[in-house]
Amino acid sequence: MKPFNIGIIGLGARGVVLLSSLIKIPELNVAAVCDNDLGRVERYRELCREKGLSEPFSTVDYRELLARDLDAVIVSTTWNTHVPIAVAAMRAGKHVGIEVGGALCEQDCWELVKTSEETGRFCMMLENCCYGDNELTVFNMARQGLFGEIVHAAGGYEHDLREQIALGGEMRHGRMVNFLHRNGDLYPTHQLGPIAKLLNINRGNRILSVVSVASKARGVHHWIEKNRPDDSELMRADWKEGDVVTSILRCAGGETIVLTHACTLPRPYSRDGRIQGTRGLWLEERDAVFVEDDAPQTVSNPDGEHHWSPLSDYKAEYRHPLWVEYDRKGIAKEGHNDMDYLVLCAFADSLEHGEPPIDVYDTATWMAVTYLSEQSVAMGGTPVPMPDFTSGRWLNRAPERRSKYALTEICREQFE
Amino acid sequence: MKPFNIGIIGLGARGVVLLSSLIKIPELNVAAVCDNDLGRVERYRELCREKGLSEPFSTVDYRELLARDLDAVIVSTTWNTHVPIAVAAMRAGKHVGIEVGGALCEQDCWELVKTSEETGRFCMMLENCCYGDNELTVFNMARQGLFGEIVHAAGGYEHDLREQIALGGEMRHGRMVNFLHRNGDLYPTHQLGPIAKLLNINRGNRILSVVSVASKARGVHHWIEKNRPDDSELMRADWKEGDVVTSILRCAGGETIVLTHACTLPRPYSRDGRIQGTRGLWLEERDAVFVEDDAPQTVSNPDGEHHWSPLSDYKAEYRHPLWVEYDRKGIAKEGHNDMDYLVLCAFADSLEHGEPPIDVYDTATWMAVTYLSEQSVAMGGTPVPMPDFTSGRWLNRAPERRSKYALTEICREQFE
Repeated sequence: MKPFNIGIIGLGARGVVLLSSLIKIPELNVAAVCDNDLGRVERYRELCREKGLSEPFSTVDYRELLARDLDAVIVSTTWNTHVPIAVAAMRAGKHVGIEVGGALCEQDCWELVKTSEETGRFCMMLENCCYGDNELTVFNMARQGLFGEIVHAAGGYEHDLREQIALGGEMRHGRMVNFLHRNGDLYPTHQLGPIAKLLNINRGNRILSVVSVASKARGVHHWIEKNRPDDSELMRADWKEGDVVTSILRCAGGETIVLTHACTLPRPYSRDGRIQGTRGLWLEERDAVFVEDDAPQTVSNPDGEHHWSPLSDYKAEYRHPLWVEYDRKGIAKEGHNDMDYLVLCAFADSLEHGEPPIDVYDTATWMAVTYLSEQSVAMGGTPVPMPDFTSGRWLNRAPERRSKYALTEICREQFE
Repeated sequence: MKPFNIGIIGLGARGVVLLSSLIKIPELNVAAVCDNDLGRVERYRELCREKGLSEPFSTVDYRELLARDLDAVIVSTTWNTHVPIAVAAMRAGKHVGIEVGGALCEQDCWELVKTSEETGRFCMMLENCCYGDNELTVFNMARQGLFGEIVHAAGGYEHDLREQIALGGEMRHGRMVNFLHRNGDLYPTHQLGPIAKLLNINRGNRILSVVSVASKARGVHHWIEKNRPDDSELMRADWKEGDVVTSILRCAGGETIVLTHACTLPRPYSRDGRIQGTRGLWLEERDAVFVEDDAPQTVSNPDGEHHWSPLSDYKAEYRHPLWVEYDRKGIAKEGHNDMDYLVLCAFADSLEHGEPPIDVYDTATWMAVTYLSEQSVAMGGTPVPMPDFTSGRWLNRAPERRSKYALTEICREQFE
């Protein structure tokens, strides 16, 4: 099979990290790269040479890249430019893999959806956490009924990014301006992605509403006071993003999803996952599960006080076949390249067969949580409605295409 | 000193448990007891005899008890009768210790407050969790600045009570009717109490609003299906209380408080505590804290990945002097009598000196979360305002009376 020619738009830290996974996937050929910073373009070309790749076409203007004969593009630019570039790419006939981020407004989400529908090109969010080992193990347990009927889920993006936010620096994530001026869940998809797939969001279920409440913003200023007390401009900065933004999503199926965004306080990283049903639950912070009947009890206690089991006790039986295969292949881990590798394999598989496991409806819905959360925070926690980006299709959509990378079901026959 | 004569109204499970702590407190003499169930009254008199107490006056009519010459009464009846009995007790000149529970409506909260103000009798919620060992250790750490400026807190009442709820039974908590007909955070104070004291609620800070969202209700029916499938009446019951009710409270000081109520799903007990500030946090589910600078790092990682420390590492230095003293006294533990004992000591201390650490404003505010949560759930998560039960006094109230049992500060000189 001839590999798919892909372009990468956005060669910052994320574009560089992706390359280490891309070179392990023979179905994907990096044929063109682009960044509006010429220095980054040149460094990336050099990186390609170092890795023994044939030199890609390169440009500082993404429209030049989109004019080329490519099968798909990956958009790994700064958050707030994802949508216009993805839309332009689909209009230029390319399938799109869009990096993780949130939406600025409702119109952007509709434009992604309508452009995908009109052009027949897909737009898949490359949400790597959907392919995390723990997330998929818990998904497998949930689908086999170990937690019973799922009624509640939670997740957090709790990541101490104070230095990046305060200083911007090499990463140029655009985080600084977002944290200065916005207040809401700026980065909801790492947690929401796996939860939404588990809850069949956009296929028989949908998110109805979002409420968000933000705490005061103290973390970044506190960091600056301690680490850059002489920078008077930074010391005067008035950060609007609350240190902890809590959101509650209600689903048509009656489930609730609680999301926590907290990137400006010191703490170990956590995605704070929780999947809870009528038989038991998983708690990421404990790295443990409780499954009724399975759970060890305190024998001395006649009331049968229950105890947690480490998630690892269930790994032998319930690890997702994708991870079993991945482990068997022995592809080396670099950073969180494991999840990156798998989500890019899913992207390649979708280029071959069409219909990605994370489609434009998922992408738009997950990204929408950001602007909805800002709206709710601005109105003191008032619930705001989630648009139905499927325009009613969620009611009776066909099941997801069967593949190794499917995220609403596990297609075991694909692994035989 | 002559002991205070107290009456106990409500001799169910809770009234019985309290007795084991009361007999260890010489300042309190159980002079009268009451329950509208004569069988319970008789069993309680027998219990008193067994424990070597002089026999209390007993009655099935609490008005008869209130007519006696008593210093105070403890109200340990079923939730929904706490307020009218407490109000009648204050009008009869008695100080009141009210057991844990939530309010049914705003008017009940105002009646507690206004009656206490008019009669000069206090109404203290006997919220034992305010005197928990972990809660007080973390409070001590927070007051000494280890977590920096507090911006966020969370707590859950996550207790598998399905059997009690479904069957009612001996306990007669009234849980069954509440879970059948209501939908909100029915039991918010175990977690909210310690958090509210830490955040100086009603003394320089106050709760502004509550939003609550409930998941679907599946847990109790699932339990019945499994354990009482032949009871057709139970099988048809339509439980309204969502399995997981999540609430977000906003405070005037900018802090957020997230509360989780989940009593109808199988899991190990948890109060799911979290206290988070600009320097670190405590997470009950990990039984661990993270304190910036103190925290161990992964030396091999140049980014300095931080790790949790067990809370026990901080106990030697930061245990609350009340618990150090309690431990030294060697008072035997029975059930969670440790916290009961301490909250009842605080009650006795307040009878002697006036002004309890949990006053009527705290009691009303904490109880109010229940009806506010129900209102918000009913309106799809709309934020509802918390009344200011202090009528503005929170802006400039005098500091709490100094005592061993103070909950907004630690009065170390009291332990010398």
